[in-house]
Amino acid sequence: MKPTFSLRLKIFNLNCWGIPFLSKHRADRVKRLGDFLNMESFDLVLLEEVWSEQDFHYLRQKLLPTYPAAHYFRSGIIGSGLCVFSKHPIQEFTQHVFTLNGYPYMVHHGDWFCGKAVGLLVLHLSGLVLNAYVTHLHAEYSRQKDIYLAHRVAQAWELAQFIHHTSKKADVVLLCGDLNLHPKDLGCRLLKEWTGLHDAFLETRDFKGSEEGCTMVPENCYVNQRELEQFPVGIRIDYVLYKAVSGLYISCKTLKTTTGSDPHSGTPLSDHEALMATLCVRHSPPQHNPSPTHGPAERSPLINVLREAWTELDQGLAQARWWATIAGYVIGLGLILLVLLCALAAGGGIKEIAILLWTPSVGLVLGAGAFYLFHMQEAKSLCRVRAELQHVLGRARETQDLSPESEQALLLGQQEGDRAEEQ
Amino acid sequence: MKPTFSLRLKIFNLNCWGIPFLSKHRADRVKRLGDFLNMESFDLVLLEEVWSEQDFHYLRQKLLPTYPAAHYFRSGIIGSGLCVFSKHPIQEFTQHVFTLNGYPYMVHHGDWFCGKAVGLLVLHLSGLVLNAYVTHLHAEYSRQKDIYLAHRVAQAWELAQFIHHTSKKADVVLLCGDLNLHPKDLGCRLLKEWTGLHDAFLETRDFKGSEEGCTMVPENCYVNQRELEQFPVGIRIDYVLYKAVSGLYISCKTLKTTTGSDPHSGTPLSDHEALMATLCVRHSPPQHNPSPTHGPAERSPLINVLREAWTELDQGLAQARWWATIAGYVIGLGLILLVLLCALAAGGGIKEIAILLWTPSVGLVLGAGAFYLFHMQEAKSLCRVRAELQHVLGRARETQDLSPESEQALLLGQQEGDRAEEQ
Repeated sequence: MKPTFSLRLKIFNLNCWGIPFLSKHRADRVKRLGDFLNMESFDLVLLEEVWSEQDFHYLRQKLLPTYPAAHYFRSGIIGSGLCVFSKHPIQEFTQHVFTLNGYPYMVHHGDWFCGKAVGLLVLHLSGLVLNAYVTHLHAEYSRQKDIYLAHRVAQAWELAQFIHHTSKKADVVLLCGDLNLHPKDLGCRLLKEWTGLHDAFLETRDFKGSEEGCTMVPENCYVNQRELEQFPVGIRIDYVLYKAVSGLYISCKTLKTTTGSDPHSGTPLSDHEALMATLCVRHSPPQHNPSPTHGPAERSPLINVLREAWTELDQGLAQARWWATIAGYVIGLGLILLVLLCALAAGGGIKEIAILLWTPSVGLVLGAGAFYLFHMQEAKSLCRVRAELQHVLGRARETQDLSPESEQALLLGQQEGDRAEEQ
Repeated sequence: MKPTFSLRLKIFNLNCWGIPFLSKHRADRVKRLGDFLNMESFDLVLLEEVWSEQDFHYLRQKLLPTYPAAHYFRSGIIGSGLCVFSKHPIQEFTQHVFTLNGYPYMVHHGDWFCGKAVGLLVLHLSGLVLNAYVTHLHAEYSRQKDIYLAHRVAQAWELAQFIHHTSKKADVVLLCGDLNLHPKDLGCRLLKEWTGLHDAFLETRDFKGSEEGCTMVPENCYVNQRELEQFPVGIRIDYVLYKAVSGLYISCKTLKTTTGSDPHSGTPLSDHEALMATLCVRHSPPQHNPSPTHGPAERSPLINVLREAWTELDQGLAQARWWATIAGYVIGLGLILLVLLCALAAGGGIKEIAILLWTPSVGLVLGAGAFYLFHMQEAKSLCRVRAELQHVLGRARETQDLSPESEQALLLGQQEGDRAEEQ
């Protein structure tokens, strides 16, 4: 690699809002997206919410001359909705499906059926290994009473761990996607602290687009305005995040967002705004690019966010166990009812009603059984994430000169964790 | 690192057969296992089928002085059954839960409820990074008519991919566990070809134990003899596999198995045999340790096994789609029945019978709906694995000077794949 080496990467990210039968003007928007991508010629296009595989195949055909490489990440029942188009050959790809992703009985929210995931692409560009990740986390349906908060925090952690463990030999790491997290939300801080990724919007000196970099804005005609009532400017939940290994310097030269309308025709491409970043990778003396691995001095924010996440997951765990207990009681009551009905049917009396009620009672027991099993599995998964957090917390503590108070608090927290684990 | 550097690793692996209420003499066997492990002092102990967390906590307490570090991998409803005990500090751990793992309606087999997974531990030993993996794949209940074959092949691929992507910076890679695969089975070959892992039993010059290294032997009093009818010597389904990066040489100095009885008391520790390996890592000129990455000359076995796996997954996919179609028909018939019953109930006539049959019909539609969704998800996951295999196959082809015949066959296979994907 020459000392004058420099690599420019043009990146495009969009949550496409491509729900068959539900999203407005889907076919037209997909067509216009294809035209736009062909015209602009990015290095890498990362898309979310392409729920229809037909849309992906349409785009693949349309974009083939400009983006010869493409991949659609399949998972769950509906699919992850994630896909990528690349101007450069894709060396490798794989994916990780999040173990926690909402509740199957919340059919109207639908996230559980999607199999939300993170997709990984490995590209070799100018002698560098680029690991590009695309993801879409569980939606936030109510900010005031967010029943999915623990799941989203767990997803953010799984995402961070997946990046951490699969990018150890990568020179450049890029993460794009719809995190469904505001910049200061716990999940976002956890992800950034554990992976060392930088936020293109915060880093760039040349930003053009919506106010505060928002990716859901009231100006967009497809946005449900009620959802943005509390955020007059909009919300920023889609991200371009990056980092490079020591010895390389990565910067975001320019970052653009659409502003509620297509850059050319005036009609939006989606209910989200697209992100268009130009990243520049070049050689650097180490001081230009602080290492993403945390030294003792940098540990404090990591420890704080880990402890915050630990507490959040603990609350989620209590909730999961509460639901499992309720389901257990319902199973018990259902079984008692079944025995009573059998006795009534055998003894004559209100035989017909007993027989009539027998099948719904079996249904009740089976339904409660499924509910119980689901929440038991939820509790196990939350326990697993909490154990990983606790271990990282322990390792972080070892390298940090903690004050006696915080040491004690941490110890108490850990003891609580141990007790909870042993339950 | 000194040129005379040498690292010895004593490894223990056992499928513990620890099913609460079902496995014979569980408490006694767990106790004796703890005593044995304390006496022998291994570097790393990797256990499978520790289904009860109480058993893990009992062992953790008992082994604490000899093995200060431990971890239990939680997943699914019952758990992955995987746990580890280490003499050395565990730097990091994480896990990957397999996306395909049998069928929830095969309750008597139970694998689906376990959440089978692969656990990863990162250890730093004498300046080397050791990635140790522990896993347990889906059981094989019938070798003649194995309905889980596609799932086990998919698990072997996910396992291989997880190792491939998470071990890129590891100096030494170790995989232990119950693969439920015979040495020449497709999944086992796929795993070894894609990861470059070596089989301790095949590599060592000093083996002591059961004939042909079998880990389920008829001499073991807990083994169901009928399962081994076709294998008079036993079967080898538990493994110690390893590799090291170029520049390091790893060898298996000794490998021992138990032989149907406890090494000391005479009663078996489990229905599986334990594996005890002494591995030695030292510096080496590159030619001593062939690189695990495949050069053109080594591609042929990889290509063959990838194509074989592709075909197997294709059959699994056809099967999944067939079940989804059947479920679709049942849903349709159930809905027709419901409409008829409503009409009968409204029109009088056999009103009581109509009302009586209404709830079971709703149950039928809901059950078939769940069945349909499950097999749709199965098909998506198989498609995903097939797409990854196909991509690796394509990359392998690029580096191999294929004969025109095989080139054409591969092309035909890929075209078939493309067509299938577009369906």
